[in-house]
Amino acid sequence: MAEAELKSVQGGRTREAESARESLVVHFGPERPLKLDSGIALSPFHIAYKTYGRLNAQRSNAILVCHALTGDQHVASVHPVTKKNGWWETMVGPGKPIDTERYFVICSNVVAGCMGSSGPSSIDPATGKPYGLEFPVITIRDMVRAQAMLVDHLGIDMLFAVAGGSMGGMQVLQWAQSFPERVFCALPIACATRHSAQNIAFHEVGRQAVMADPEWRHGRYLIEGTNPHRGLAVARMGAHITYMSDAALHRKFGRRFQDRSNPTFSFDADFEVESYLRYQGSSFVERFDANSYLYLTRAMDYFDLAAEHDGVLSNAFKNSPTRFCVVSFTSDWLFPTSESRAVVHALNAAGARVSFAEIVTDKGHDAFLLDEPELFAIIRGFLDGAARTRGLTHQQ
Amino acid sequence: MAEAELKSVQGGRTREAESARESLVVHFGPERPLKLDSGIALSPFHIAYKTYGRLNAQRSNAILVCHALTGDQHVASVHPVTKKNGWWETMVGPGKPIDTERYFVICSNVVAGCMGSSGPSSIDPATGKPYGLEFPVITIRDMVRAQAMLVDHLGIDMLFAVAGGSMGGMQVLQWAQSFPERVFCALPIACATRHSAQNIAFHEVGRQAVMADPEWRHGRYLIEGTNPHRGLAVARMGAHITYMSDAALHRKFGRRFQDRSNPTFSFDADFEVESYLRYQGSSFVERFDANSYLYLTRAMDYFDLAAEHDGVLSNAFKNSPTRFCVVSFTSDWLFPTSESRAVVHALNAAGARVSFAEIVTDKGHDAFLLDEPELFAIIRGFLDGAARTRGLTHQQ
Repeated sequence: MAEAELKSVQGGRTREAESARESLVVHFGPERPLKLDSGIALSPFHIAYKTYGRLNAQRSNAILVCHALTGDQHVASVHPVTKKNGWWETMVGPGKPIDTERYFVICSNVVAGCMGSSGPSSIDPATGKPYGLEFPVITIRDMVRAQAMLVDHLGIDMLFAVAGGSMGGMQVLQWAQSFPERVFCALPIACATRHSAQNIAFHEVGRQAVMADPEWRHGRYLIEGTNPHRGLAVARMGAHITYMSDAALHRKFGRRFQDRSNPTFSFDADFEVESYLRYQGSSFVERFDANSYLYLTRAMDYFDLAAEHDGVLSNAFKNSPTRFCVVSFTSDWLFPTSESRAVVHALNAAGARVSFAEIVTDKGHDAFLLDEPELFAIIRGFLDGAARTRGLTHQQ
Repeated sequence: MAEAELKSVQGGRTREAESARESLVVHFGPERPLKLDSGIALSPFHIAYKTYGRLNAQRSNAILVCHALTGDQHVASVHPVTKKNGWWETMVGPGKPIDTERYFVICSNVVAGCMGSSGPSSIDPATGKPYGLEFPVITIRDMVRAQAMLVDHLGIDMLFAVAGGSMGGMQVLQWAQSFPERVFCALPIACATRHSAQNIAFHEVGRQAVMADPEWRHGRYLIEGTNPHRGLAVARMGAHITYMSDAALHRKFGRRFQDRSNPTFSFDADFEVESYLRYQGSSFVERFDANSYLYLTRAMDYFDLAAEHDGVLSNAFKNSPTRFCVVSFTSDWLFPTSESRAVVHALNAAGARVSFAEIVTDKGHDAFLLDEPELFAIIRGFLDGAARTRGLTHQQ
């Protein structure tokens, strides 16, 4: 490799390396390939993960937290790249609703991610260079298969709970469908059993923004020493709008001008909301890999739990022993409450145990990540009840 | 100019020239500058327009149609660039709701547009080269001022009606506010008196997509022989989603695969909705100028009728003699019905005459351009009544 190439590959992989250094990493060798929905066997591969709290002697208190599209395993500790708090520190930690004094919390970077698990920015052992688009396209079920191998590796037969929002919620539903006997209770939040045409459309615009950037180089940017940061920033800006409600944007920004009282009659960021979005775009590219963005949005687009059950969602959960707590937010227009109701109806039809909470908030899809006291109370209460049923005692 | 430069400028201006050739063009010389909200006087400038039907002897049967963001003056005749039907042929023509056997219809390309009126792709007389970003930033009121100069030029004191949807509807409201004595009746459709934070946000993503394209060259692409078509296509794709409802996208495309029954596990356009969006992007760039897209979205962002009236919208319409017919669509989430209701309330508070129709449809914002029988019936009926009041007789 030429020096410029090497430097770029190193630069692009610093993030992944930093993240992995602050994580545990399990390597699955040639004897344990990841069998993908595409028919390809990914091997070797590795999964980076974090744990919080302690696994009890019965190995019965583990909660798997599944992260969303741009999340990662740093759920409740300082992020090694951004130096910010973990993305769900309000939910996970000592005394928090997912109480690490009581539960053993596992969170792994999804396969195809960019925070230490195998993904398009990882080195392809066959070539010694980053995979780029040579990395196989993965699905939500593939993510869950990899997590199941990690859970096996940790010697855990049954998870006490699987919880997550958005893409994380899709993984929760997939876990309950693929491994019903291994999931005592499931908390799918702000999600759906399939991606809608509108959601696919928004993802496609994001992908086109990345791929339109000449620095993307058909996914070979790490090797060629370029950086499709402009395209990725545009993708993030567009996506970010869908995470917020119209009402929340109005409440936060309205039509207020940035640092001035009159329009500039220019294309500067005149309005506060423009400035905010530009910041969201530029900060995102510091911590995320453009190809991973393509792979993970694709996995979400492909997600359709009912599809393999002749379109009958309830068949996906027939005789499920899992206890479900489905949560949605009134102002979430990306995964509207109607999608969660459809899950609840299917679970009812399948005879599964299910609680449903629709939380009234104007915070939109992002509400699952924000300070939402009703969400905290619901999750704490549901887990408390399930823990009693499961016979988990408080560990003081 | 070097040969490459010249070729690019010519290529980029062919569209404008073709459009102008199929239009009437009025040139406003140094003695008639366009005084802009920014304080700049644009001079000289020209406005390209089309007319349909005949002006009656009393000059009292003129209807000004105002076009939307990506529309133009070719409202009811074949488009000179795309060779497709006019964008509102279902509404305007002989025997149509806006009946050209009865009314004299005028539609002009807005200032800063790219279909023959002065805009960023026009030649700056000061330099002999296309303006690019040297063209002054304009507002909806500036568009209306230019239209008023055109109406003066045509010798028309009072328009029988001003009608338009989306950005066209903003112009209708601005006409009624700026020139109440010159507008007998006004039909603002699927619009608002100000752009919301969410709408500004979507526009900003579109602008950033254009400006992130290295071929944009700070707006100098016509001079430099480049073409920011990739950025503009991404902008159009994103915007297009906002013109349709979730339900309409689901009805039209659902999760159907394109030309196949299984996923390709690739980043090809697997889903029909992806393929459709890509087509929307690529066909748009053939007929639209990237800088015009920046200018017109900016004008919409700046629009806020109440702002100059201490935020009290009804003051903008105090003692208005104009008859209003406000129309909205239930599934329009870009300009939701609540925005039209706010207009109606303000008009009521101002003591103006106003009818309001909320049309039940799943077609989203684009409904105003589509085959929507209730819309046709409402506009026909409203104009009929207003024509009787105005004393317009049928010209057979």
